[in-house]
Amino acid sequence: MPVDLSYSAEVLDLVARTEAFIAAHVLPVEEEFAGDITAAGGDDLRRELNAKAKAAGVFAPHAPVEYGGLGLSMSDRSPVFSAAGLSTFGPAALHIGAPDEGNVHMLAHIASDAQRDKYLGPLATGEVRSAFAMTEPAPSGAGADPNQLSTTATRVGGGWRINGRKRFITGAEGAGFFIIMARTAGGVGDRGGATMFLAPGGTAGISVDRHVETIDKAMIGGHCEMTFTDVFVPDEDVLGEVDEGYRYAQVRLGPARMTHVMRWLGSAQRAHRVAVDYVRERDGFGGKLADLGMIQQLIADNEIDLAATQALLARACYELDQGEHASDSTSIAKTYGAEAFSRIVDRSIQMCGGLGVSADLPLARLANELRPFRIYDGPSEVHRWAIAKRAVGRARKAAERKG
Amino acid sequence: MPVDLSYSAEVLDLVARTEAFIAAHVLPVEEEFAGDITAAGGDDLRRELNAKAKAAGVFAPHAPVEYGGLGLSMSDRSPVFSAAGLSTFGPAALHIGAPDEGNVHMLAHIASDAQRDKYLGPLATGEVRSAFAMTEPAPSGAGADPNQLSTTATRVGGGWRINGRKRFITGAEGAGFFIIMARTAGGVGDRGGATMFLAPGGTAGISVDRHVETIDKAMIGGHCEMTFTDVFVPDEDVLGEVDEGYRYAQVRLGPARMTHVMRWLGSAQRAHRVAVDYVRERDGFGGKLADLGMIQQLIADNEIDLAATQALLARACYELDQGEHASDSTSIAKTYGAEAFSRIVDRSIQMCGGLGVSADLPLARLANELRPFRIYDGPSEVHRWAIAKRAVGRARKAAERKG
Amino acid sequence: MPVDLSYSAEVLDLVARTEAFIAAHVLPVEEEFAGDITAAGGDDLRRELNAKAKAAGVFAPHAPVEYGGLGLSMSDRSPVFSAAGLSTFGPAALHIGAPDEGNVHMLAHIASDAQRDKYLGPLATGEVRSAFAMTEPAPSGAGADPNQLSTTATRVGGGWRINGRKRFITGAEGAGFFIIMARTAGGVGDRGGATMFLAPGGTAGISVDRHVETIDKAMIGGHCEMTFTDVFVPDEDVLGEVDEGYRYAQVRLGPARMTHVMRWLGSAQRAHRVAVDYVRERDGFGGKLADLGMIQQLIADNEIDLAATQALLARACYELDQGEHASDSTSIAKTYGAEAFSRIVDRSIQMCGGLGVSADLPLARLANELRPFRIYDGPSEVHRWAIAKRAVGRARKAAERKG
Amino acid sequence: MPVDLSYSAEVLDLVARTEAFIAAHVLPVEEEFAGDITAAGGDDLRRELNAKAKAAGVFAPHAPVEYGGLGLSMSDRSPVFSAAGLSTFGPAALHIGAPDEGNVHMLAHIASDAQRDKYLGPLATGEVRSAFAMTEPAPSGAGADPNQLSTTATRVGGGWRINGRKRFITGAEGAGFFIIMARTAGGVGDRGGATMFLAPGGTAGISVDRHVETIDKAMIGGHCEMTFTDVFVPDEDVLGEVDEGYRYAQVRLGPARMTHVMRWLGSAQRAHRVAVDYVRERDGFGGKLADLGMIQQLIADNEIDLAATQALLARACYELDQGEHASDSTSIAKTYGAEAFSRIVDRSIQMCGGLGVSADLPLARLANELRPFRIYDGPSEVHRWAIAKRAVGRARKAAERKG
Repeated sequence: MPVDLSYSAEVLDLVARTEAFIAAHVLPVEEEFAGDITAAGGDDLRRELNAKAKAAGVFAPHAPVEYGGLGLSMSDRSPVFSAAGLSTFGPAALHIGAPDEGNVHMLAHIASDAQRDKYLGPLATGEVRSAFAMTEPAPSGAGADPNQLSTTATRVGGGWRINGRKRFITGAEGAGFFIIMARTAGGVGDRGGATMFLAPGGTAGISVDRHVETIDKAMIGGHCEMTFTDVFVPDEDVLGEVDEGYRYAQVRLGPARMTHVMRWLGSAQRAHRVAVDYVRERDGFGGKLADLGMIQQLIADNEIDLAATQALLARACYELDQGEHASDSTSIAKTYGAEAFSRIVDRSIQMCGGLGVSADLPLARLANELRPFRIYDGPSEVHRWAIAKRAVGRARKAAERKG
Repeated sequence: MPVDLSYSAEVLDLVARTEAFIAAHVLPVEEEFAGDITAAGGDDLRRELNAKAKAAGVFAPHAPVEYGGLGLSMSDRSPVFSAAGLSTFGPAALHIGAPDEGNVHMLAHIASDAQRDKYLGPLATGEVRSAFAMTEPAPSGAGADPNQLSTTATRVGGGWRINGRKRFITGAEGAGFFIIMARTAGGVGDRGGATMFLAPGGTAGISVDRHVETIDKAMIGGHCEMTFTDVFVPDEDVLGEVDEGYRYAQVRLGPARMTHVMRWLGSAQRAHRVAVDYVRERDGFGGKLADLGMIQQLIADNEIDLAATQALLARACYELDQGEHASDSTSIAKTYGAEAFSRIVDRSIQMCGGLGVSADLPLARLANELRPFRIYDGPSEVHRWAIAKRAVGRARKAAERKG
Repeated sequence: MPVDLSYSAEVLDLVARTEAFIAAHVLPVEEEFAGDITAAGGDDLRRELNAKAKAAGVFAPHAPVEYGGLGLSMSDRSPVFSAAGLSTFGPAALHIGAPDEGNVHMLAHIASDAQRDKYLGPLATGEVRSAFAMTEPAPSGAGADPNQLSTTATRVGGGWRINGRKRFITGAEGAGFFIIMARTAGGVGDRGGATMFLAPGGTAGISVDRHVETIDKAMIGGHCEMTFTDVFVPDEDVLGEVDEGYRYAQVRLGPARMTHVMRWLGSAQRAHRVAVDYVRERDGFGGKLADLGMIQQLIADNEIDLAATQALLARACYELDQGEHASDSTSIAKTYGAEAFSRIVDRSIQMCGGLGVSADLPLARLANELRPFRIYDGPSEVHRWAIAKRAVGRARKAAERKG
Repeated sequence: MPVDLSYSAEVLDLVARTEAFIAAHVLPVEEEFAGDITAAGGDDLRRELNAKAKAAGVFAPHAPVEYGGLGLSMSDRSPVFSAAGLSTFGPAALHIGAPDEGNVHMLAHIASDAQRDKYLGPLATGEVRSAFAMTEPAPSGAGADPNQLSTTATRVGGGWRINGRKRFITGAEGAGFFIIMARTAGGVGDRGGATMFLAPGGTAGISVDRHVETIDKAMIGGHCEMTFTDVFVPDEDVLGEVDEGYRYAQVRLGPARMTHVMRWLGSAQRAHRVAVDYVRERDGFGGKLADLGMIQQLIADNEIDLAATQALLARACYELDQGEHASDSTSIAKTYGAEAFSRIVDRSIQMCGGLGVSADLPLARLANELRPFRIYDGPSEVHRWAIAKRAVGRARKAAERKG
């Protein structure tokens, strides 16, 4: 997978420096935690790694320049984020992990000046982390289907009062502030009627009830279950317009999906490299394993999956950088990438035999980090539904044009 | 997946009692360990569960009747072992887990009378556990390719002296005795020339060096790395004939593969049941998730995979019970089953969304238990190679007959 | 794929004689038509082959003994029909092709004595062929969804008057009689309300409008579009009870699905044999193609698919022979088999390279014969929907039992 | 699949005009031949369509400007060739079909001035067609493995004498000239030692023995078996350097692979459009088929496959336009595309049910046109082998760099 030659020399240099930084400063830390990675080591470690990343000039490549970031376009972020993804601690080290990176992106687009000072600044510089509180628990509640949103925000003097339960809120534990999605119009099952609210972590009524233990461990602050009980949010902390929450969520989701793909592409590349290095060296069946046809098929299928993901990602980033919604191309790249990553790491495990399922190699651990992406940020089924709907809609319009 | 109606009433009753036993006595124990299952709770727990299984009349359904077992045929074992597999602690509870179950099978076929008293009896009754020391570490050594066998047994007065290293030796920690595969003729890379040796756990020179941490956690005694240093085995503890080790390994492997399929079929059925129950209840997209076409496809594909595995397993057990080698049908059932199990549990996870990758449901844990089976007992690639070789051989003979 | 040893010596002998008959008398005829197979050569050829099959004692192995058939159970038909399927002309030669074989089966279960004399006898002995007129044209009409049935039968003095259009009516051209499914209650979209009618081929108002040209060519009488205009059917030619047509269709469909699987399994086996023989002989990459890992993977996957289809088929036939509905096991075997057959022939083509897509080998032709089975007799999607529905229903009942 | 917005207005206009030309002038012709397409209608029809294409300004978009072509880069050819591929007669109409298009490309790079006048000019303008004689018949001979090359060229006074047999020579019947690959050094199985020769169609000793009938029908001049008997080629008609034939073949193969992908991408897009239009309109199961989840999955998977092929193609064309060999990216795009096309048309058939396998829709026909591409221009297995070899080679070098 050669890096696209059309990247500028500056970007290629940043990619190289990021890879070197990950190898020198991040992988050794990951190694220490490998036996028991929880919450990626916590905030102290994050700040320590952030400081090193700043020193190495690789910190926050996506953040606005005014906050010390490098202000890269989506296209240019792509190889840099993937390089960071070569360690599961890389995104935290560069402060480009979810949900912070997506929140920076959204706040930079929507936040008022006061909100930029109060929330965006501290977040962009790594002073605090943040969380995005949208998903809700079963049997009903907003999961893959956002219309099920049941957390409510009720008008009170000078602001809003929020009540509801949330689940899988990434980074909630220790978050400096929350972006809360709550219903301000309509009822459960209705489309629209959601608003986004900003609230500092210590606000009365915000409770992080428990970590939902999941097979991915790399996200600082975990995936949490939360209760919002009569949480008061003043009018100045309403993010954007009332009832426009879903529209903003879309603004956030397209790029956020793609940065997920970028980071986890790095994990998939790492898994592939580990496996190729193994079969190059391991004896068996009268030669090296890498000389066997079925192993070559696994290698080639990994190469094809990596190349296709990169190509779809490049296309989606191009569209996003052109200012397009890119709903279709980001859905396609996300769906393909998430499924490809599981295939790639699974083939890598298979190539390494018994070692592949052991902690002697990082593969089984990476499989557990990558599996949830077929569910997070919209399950593959929901993306396929949306992709099909749009395809049918385009066909209908084309037929109408022809008359 | 209705149970095959051709089973006798006795077997069906045993299946029902096994399911009930697992539900009442084993799943609650598994639940306790769910957060941190290592070595399936250890030998004390195993003995406790064994006692309960004996009391319930479901202990060791495969063991010879003379040792207190039920002496079931392979065909009849199938639904009973699958019922036990509904808990990851079930096989240990019934004393039908690997490698003990396969070792009982092999010793019952090959052991001398003295060996039966000294080794088989205590093993069959659950007094001790055992291990089968065949696999060796990379870069060379007997892994998927047994001809790489490099542990040696050298003739000395009154017996043999064994030297070598082994890896992925299941159940080694705490094993009452070992069956050791060592080279008695030829060199590394040569076919044949292996012999099986029996040695009590405390024999001088046997060292369990470390647990290889793997993603499956359910096997008591773990998967270990071992060193054999000048281990002396007297002639009376040579198992079967000298230089015939590979032939005996084949005797063991066919049935052992099938009992793996039986047990893990139970895990796969459990995953499917959990997921179907989830989508029956979860609201979304204007109904229950179980009413959505893409979810129905996941359910149906699971049903198809379960049915095909059961059908292939039934065929292979039929052949084994007829006294055939059944190399082909056991390879096919093993390969299909191992791959189907990963697909089934993966689809089950997908059906359950975020919960699917969490510890709130057993699915992600089961995925980690099931994944290694595509590698253990011969990677899929090795089985496919053997299946193809035999198919080509049969075609050649058919052509010669015609020609 | 060794034949199941549990077959009786008589059945194994019949299988061997069927294979020999196909090789000696049918494949040479297929060869002649290979360049341009349409309607499998027509009725004259069919009668000629039927006579030879009678002489060889392999004619109509499924038909009732009273009509000169061999009266085999579903289980015993299985290897015989597969042997016949080794030629695309085999089913016609043995008079076991669709739809006749299924119609014999259904008439033997439902027909009145008079109907047996008038319709079943001539059909079972091969004097005439028949057709089953159920499917209707788009945009509405009964296709995969039988509730769309729009052909109507209206009560008139002494019988019924049928009007409607049908499509994909296999064997319509030259059929001795038709079984017509028409609505006698309810309207389009309603469940139930269908009745089956018998009508001789020459009945006034029955028109075979055109052959729908399809990629499968082996069925005598083609797949036709038909119009029924005021077709009068007297009361004595109503098949079974009025309004019970769907129930009878189910009686027919389970076994008919399985005999489709049996016949086309023969085609798939043939494709696999051709390909294995090719790669055994073809030089390339320093040896025979059969020695290459990726080719071995194709061979092994074919073997697995063949074995799984056989095993699922055996299970479904067992249930049908026990008198069960076997809706689930026949749906599963049909869906798996139909998809496996396309995979098998596709891999066989790939193994043979350029020759694989040429008329020098029968593979591309077989691919075209096999592809439609994923659609005929219920598309895979409809079967999956039904399989899932039943699985959810069983889970619901199990939950209710538990309380 | 929106067209890439980065194309220039000129290219987008050409794409639109090409689509319009295909719809107005080519699809109606294809329609006429649909029942019996052989050799795409022959050379008279080709010349007629070529004239219309010239009039519409869409002829030979790839050919050098000096010969009346449009001189498009690989990147810009991509959407134009795909638009032409919307009809199976489109490539012939625009004179961009295989092997002519690849031969123009290669001659433009390698031919001497005299050869340009004698061969390239007449070919580029559509005056004549050409063929590329490389593949040889089994059991040995150059098929997927070019080292098996057994056709020989022996030095004689003033030139060479060629003897050998060739197979699957596309466009041989009626070709104005041949490019013949023959061995000038080494023996069968040796690497290298091949030379390319130019010879007019009427040269003594060149014999087109038969058409190999294949399931694809769209290539003018068919796929032929040929004999070369003492064919004399003067020194001035040696193409490039002696013994450098394989190197030139590589020059030809990369771009030729990509133009195959472009053209057949058009066929796949057409199949998808036909199917989406069908399920938008067809009633069933209480709505339109397009509203069913399993149908939406088929649609979405087609969209994903189309997008991934386009993205990989764009990447490979970018590299080729930069003057790179692009062996890896063209292998990957070819392998992915060829397999995706079969999947896409297969899903399209499935969406259309019975009509899908009939001649009422072009789908089954397109399936037969697309299937061979997984074999032509290197079977997927050979590409995977090469992709894996290169990946392992890169890993080895990376490891060596690290020390």
